[in-house]
Amino acid sequence: MRNIKLIIEYDGKGFNGWQKQPNKPNIQGEIENAIERITGEKVELYASGRTDAGVHAIAQTANFKTNSSIPIEKLCLAINSQLKKSIVVKEATEVDENFHCRYNCKGKKYRYIINNSINGSAIYRGLEYHMLAKLNVDKMREAAKFFVGVHDFKAFKSSGTSSKSSVREIYTAEVIEEGERIKIELTGSGFLYNMVRIISGTLVDVGLGKIKPEEIKDIIENKDRTKAGKTLPAHGLYLVEVYY
Amino acid sequence: MRNIKLIIEYDGKGFNGWQKQPNKPNIQGEIENAIERITGEKVELYASGRTDAGVHAIAQTANFKTNSSIPIEKLCLAINSQLKKSIVVKEATEVDENFHCRYNCKGKKYRYIINNSINGSAIYRGLEYHMLAKLNVDKMREAAKFFVGVHDFKAFKSSGTSSKSSVREIYTAEVIEEGERIKIELTGSGFLYNMVRIISGTLVDVGLGKIKPEEIKDIIENKDRTKAGKTLPAHGLYLVEVYY
Repeated sequence: MRNIKLIIEYDGKGFNGWQKQPNKPNIQGEIENAIERITGEKVELYASGRTDAGVHAIAQTANFKTNSSIPIEKLCLAINSQLKKSIVVKEATEVDENFHCRYNCKGKKYRYIINNSINGSAIYRGLEYHMLAKLNVDKMREAAKFFVGVHDFKAFKSSGTSSKSSVREIYTAEVIEEGERIKIELTGSGFLYNMVRIISGTLVDVGLGKIKPEEIKDIIENKDRTKAGKTLPAHGLYLVEVYY
Repeated sequence: MRNIKLIIEYDGKGFNGWQKQPNKPNIQGEIENAIERITGEKVELYASGRTDAGVHAIAQTANFKTNSSIPIEKLCLAINSQLKKSIVVKEATEVDENFHCRYNCKGKKYRYIINNSINGSAIYRGLEYHMLAKLNVDKMREAAKFFVGVHDFKAFKSSGTSSKSSVREIYTAEVIEEGERIKIELTGSGFLYNMVRIISGTLVDVGLGKIKPEEIKDIIENKDRTKAGKTLPAHGLYLVEVYY
């Protein structure tokens, strides 16, 4: 059987997340149905991981097995022709039969976008989190450094996750200011349930002066979720890249 | 009376353009109604100019006269509290009683965004024009230079405009490549009806090899609309700045 890897962009609004589930709009199900319509086969998509309800992806990855002989260069357009416009397959490549988007994943990059202006944006309102109170970006940048490295991120995950260990490695943590926008970019080996949104919420508390940058160290060490910031809303979060 | 100048951002989707008109959603009417609700006065907004159905604005300007004593620093939030989320007043300033957003306008900047990739974008689909065929950006850039200067732009306007003269000055014409996006940015003294969308459509024909860059000169001189490119769709166009 052929093993096909897809790179997928989606607007998370209107979906109850990546994962297939009955009676709720989901991205996995939409793409599996689109593939079935063009190949006649029921396939299962193996993603790099789930994304939650409302979260966007610039480059989610997922693979599937197929006996279809559709030429690889025609596959994207064929699948896209069967999809809603809020999901676009950007690239399809043929990969080794043992390749698996989740098991072979070496890391991921996420971006959280905050619009830090008094009135927010009309055009990008569904694509960023509007935060009126002025944030101190220098302090946020200083705080972000403490997340880098191998840590037990128990204080930065929501309950309901099935992961055995909450130890993860964060490779880079950047806070980028672009006009009225603040972008928090994290790359790491993997991320726990809501981890990026809780780290972003904690950096917001630093930006507001509620938490000092150097306190991040203690919050990580104490492993107490209540000491970290709140979980920011889904519509500001993007899965940007998956590394193999 | 006080004279207030607003800077306004809007997502053009769902509006039949800036101008007030009965029974069709329009941006001017929405803002005038919002101002009436907070001041109790019927006001008239004088914009830098109209924008067409579906066109976006990052910074449209408009002024209005009022007897209201609402402090200027509270005006934005007050108006925005009465507006749909697709319109945001970004700034309100008190200006000289004779200032008029249209008559005092010294120039404008427009941007046209083309997504030049095979599959387009899921996230930004309503905010850019998707064009599958690969465009030659170097040729487009070369062609853009011919628009700069004082010219009769009769070949680059749609009929139905009431302007007496079709002579305008274009100050700068840039073609910027950013990943899969091509941005056409024009600044000028003023623009005729559909002028930016027709110039962009003509540059697309250059990018496709249908028109040679140096032919732009003749197309301008011949003043024949049929020799220029087609009018690109509204949803890729942004009014970026108005100069005073």
